[in-house]
Amino acid sequence: MTQYGAIEGGGTKFVPAVADEDNQIIARTKIATGQPEATLRAISAFFDDFALTAVGLGSFGPIDLNEDSPSYGTILNTPKTAWQGYDIVGELHQRLQVPVFATTDVNVACLGEYQFGIAQGVRSCVYFTVGTGIGAGAINQGRLIQGLAHPEMGHMRVLQDPADDFAGLCPYHRNCLEGLAAGPALAARAGRPAGELPADDRCWAIEADYLAQAANTVSLLLAPEVIIFGGGVMNQPQLLPMIRNRFERYNQGYVDRPPLTEYLQGASLHDNQGVLGCLALAQQGMVPSTVLNQ
Amino acid sequence: MTQYGAIEGGGTKFVPAVADEDNQIIARTKIATGQPEATLRAISAFFDDFALTAVGLGSFGPIDLNEDSPSYGTILNTPKTAWQGYDIVGELHQRLQVPVFATTDVNVACLGEYQFGIAQGVRSCVYFTVGTGIGAGAINQGRLIQGLAHPEMGHMRVLQDPADDFAGLCPYHRNCLEGLAAGPALAARAGRPAGELPADDRCWAIEADYLAQAANTVSLLLAPEVIIFGGGVMNQPQLLPMIRNRFERYNQGYVDRPPLTEYLQGASLHDNQGVLGCLALAQQGMVPSTVLNQ
Repeated sequence: MTQYGAIEGGGTKFVPAVADEDNQIIARTKIATGQPEATLRAISAFFDDFALTAVGLGSFGPIDLNEDSPSYGTILNTPKTAWQGYDIVGELHQRLQVPVFATTDVNVACLGEYQFGIAQGVRSCVYFTVGTGIGAGAINQGRLIQGLAHPEMGHMRVLQDPADDFAGLCPYHRNCLEGLAAGPALAARAGRPAGELPADDRCWAIEADYLAQAANTVSLLLAPEVIIFGGGVMNQPQLLPMIRNRFERYNQGYVDRPPLTEYLQGASLHDNQGVLGCLALAQQGMVPSTVLNQ
Repeated sequence: MTQYGAIEGGGTKFVPAVADEDNQIIARTKIATGQPEATLRAISAFFDDFALTAVGLGSFGPIDLNEDSPSYGTILNTPKTAWQGYDIVGELHQRLQVPVFATTDVNVACLGEYQFGIAQGVRSCVYFTVGTGIGAGAINQGRLIQGLAHPEMGHMRVLQDPADDFAGLCPYHRNCLEGLAAGPALAARAGRPAGELPADDRCWAIEADYLAQAANTVSLLLAPEVIIFGGGVMNQPQLLPMIRNRFERYNQGYVDRPPLTEYLQGASLHDNQGVLGCLALAQQGMVPSTVLNQ
């Protein structure tokens, strides 16, 4: 029986999992993100009981994904200094002795929805993760967007609502999308955790407005067939309809697109989009220039 | 001898050309954009003297480029009402009896630079045409960006300089990038044609700022290896260095990119990028999902 490994590697926890060739998950665990060596030791101990064919990794970043780079697979500048310069792909390969295919955490979520979820059958899609940070993965004509580096869509500029005097939290840009609309910004603006805010709090309208601008910008630059919003902040059920309501404020009828209930969607895989995306990576032996199966 | 046809189809003129298999242009003409039938009759008369293998078309738009669409190759909503709904690809094929491969006018410029110019050897690039309008073509991992439709990057929003009280000219969005920074906007703001403005006029600083924002946004969303600026407005030699000067105002050291003299470049093919891109289209039998040769 062929088994594939999946590793969702986040800043607070790693989630390794094993699935059979029908993508049924047969084992999964959680490992707190500690020092790199200890974290990888725990991951490889978890995989010890399985005979893996290949592993797919969706890593926190930034990570060097340039296939021609000597530092391919290495974590780049990150506030988690112990991981800076750590060759996570090489070390996993060393320990597991199977091919390791890697991309970003937001790319695997996009890939999961593309291969197994709501974006099945399209050629081009974007997946926004709105949580502690904001990131997005995108697929164009069956290939992940990946150039000089992976995209950093969370840092696009947005027009700040004049009624929103929040300064923004991005250490680089202050009031970019992430600085104004990631979970910590939402909580800081409101003065309490987002989960405690009533559904009609004005902060949700502000949040929806910035995410609608992000959707409009990706629709103009990437022309995706569907734009998906996932991540912890999107667990608020009132938010997605509010983003849809605000999208035309920016599009103004310009881009001819499907009905908004089809065009702007929530994640469809019950928080399994990441692990399923990792499995797709592993099964397809995927590097950035791979053309995805469908 | 194998001969390929190229057609740059613009709103004011069509430029058909013929090249040999070494991309040497052996004939070229200009035809004013009139009624569709008359325009295509003139184009096909020009090609009568040649034995073409295939034709590449870079068309004004919007144009339906969805390979699965029943209206593939048809001009969509355009102020040039005689062309609305006109099947330019089908009609050219009918008249010329050779395969016709089509994309947008801005995509062929991008493709020309990618195949023959400054973007040779990269996997991902963006080409902005800044002229009567603003548009951009982009290539990711060897494929043109093309999803639901072709990109419409000229209509991205920018942060308007508080010192710039110009209302903007875009009939849809008023003060989007095109509305604030295309040639007509530049002339309307200045009260005279852009070509008559001194190099130190404040309008150039405003223009450079908006184009620097556009470069920053594409760098975050598409991570291109190079961003190229072409089109009539870019004929002002002071403009490109000013865009470079302003780029970091928006990037703030966030995206790790090559030196700005390499990252932000002017067009390199002496106004031949469009015709060369059309030839690349024709030679590669290219539809949106084609992986480009390099």
